[in-house]
Amino acid sequence: MLPRFFAPDATASAAVVALSDDEAGHLTRVLRLGPGDPIRVFDGRGHEWEAAVEEVRRGEASVRLGPQIEPMREAGVSITLVAAVLKADHMDAVVRDAVMLGAAAIVPLLTDHAEVTARVVDRGGRIARWRRIAIASAKQCGRAVVPPVHEALPIADALAQPAAAARIMLTEPSASGPGTVALSQLPRAAGAELLIGPEGGWTVGERQLATASGCILVTLGAHTLRAAAAPIVAMTAVRAMWGDL
Amino acid sequence: MLPRFFAPDATASAAVVALSDDEAGHLTRVLRLGPGDPIRVFDGRGHEWEAAVEEVRRGEASVRLGPQIEPMREAGVSITLVAAVLKADHMDAVVRDAVMLGAAAIVPLLTDHAEVTARVVDRGGRIARWRRIAIASAKQCGRAVVPPVHEALPIADALAQPAAAARIMLTEPSASGPGTVALSQLPRAAGAELLIGPEGGWTVGERQLATASGCILVTLGAHTLRAAAAPIVAMTAVRAMWGDL
Repeated sequence: MLPRFFAPDATASAAVVALSDDEAGHLTRVLRLGPGDPIRVFDGRGHEWEAAVEEVRRGEASVRLGPQIEPMREAGVSITLVAAVLKADHMDAVVRDAVMLGAAAIVPLLTDHAEVTARVVDRGGRIARWRRIAIASAKQCGRAVVPPVHEALPIADALAQPAAAARIMLTEPSASGPGTVALSQLPRAAGAELLIGPEGGWTVGERQLATASGCILVTLGAHTLRAAAAPIVAMTAVRAMWGDL
Repeated sequence: MLPRFFAPDATASAAVVALSDDEAGHLTRVLRLGPGDPIRVFDGRGHEWEAAVEEVRRGEASVRLGPQIEPMREAGVSITLVAAVLKADHMDAVVRDAVMLGAAAIVPLLTDHAEVTARVVDRGGRIARWRRIAIASAKQCGRAVVPPVHEALPIADALAQPAAAARIMLTEPSASGPGTVALSQLPRAAGAELLIGPEGGWTVGERQLATASGCILVTLGAHTLRAAAAPIVAMTAVRAMWGDL
């Protein structure tokens, strides 16, 4: 596979496009490419081009677009991952893997059993970091779409927003009760919003709020999963059960 | 959930059982439990008991078994995970997650694009480490079975052993060719041996060897997955597609 670069300014009518500092650094310092080297360019909105390095100087780089090519097909099931913010390296992995598994969007969630506070998310520049990881992951896995990473939201605010698709809250087997169904019992749908909790699980209040807001509470097998593994397992299970893998 | 301890010496006729040093350390130093405290004990072979701490002294601990209880149900699809050895923390996560996802056994695989050599696996005591992780993972996720972690094998040796179930080799979308099928095309079965490659993927020779040995080469969606995420995604997909989640 040719190295792929993210250029949100690329359009069908552009001939030469400048890369961002991050992308130029990857092209020049990491891969040491120079004028004429063949690459691919994608705009993050589902378009991809054959391309070549046009010019490289002092940490800047521009690329010349060639013919537009067929982008990787996006997932058939549109999944918005609404995932509790975990500690740094775990959340990085969640974002990276969610993009690889075809997430349509990622919403970091601030929960009662939070491992990370809103203050840390803000001050630590976490959202910007996750957006960079989403780009890097799309580059690596072949997607021409970079899913948006939204601002972190308290769960009440996330639930107050209109749902684009069925809202599904994954609950621990031990916390399942009346009204909880197995994921396999849900009918196939074109999309889903998947709410995944933190290491300590959801509080009773959060589960009640979710139910009152029309969330479906689901369990996934009998095993307790690691919080960092739950998003990837849930996304894979939904896509597999709904015939999208 | 009460804290759970692994006691391979527990049997239906035993009244009091001594714990291993690791388990006694967890009971005394980490959880600071003492005589009379209620716990649960499992033997790693699918049996579980209500129990109580009997005696604690100088780093040793014994437990008194109470009534046997219904263990967590094991996965309906018996999956042996044959996974390329990855660098340390990634392989730790693979073992931990595979146990949580119900693996029946784990076989560390030495591959051509190895990140870790046989020498490092031997000298670094990696197998013993992964066995401890398998126990810790079973304790945490509620399984009463601790799946065996076998000695690391070169792929030729792994393929030379008789297969207990259909052998399925996961291949990168870019390496798929004639004879490769989508995982969703496989018929449901009672079990599977899942071969998952290293970061650099399988070599042509490894794929040919696998095909010659009766392996089915499968792909899983169009995206390229991280090597450390591939085992968990593949196991989840198989269980979900075969109605076992």
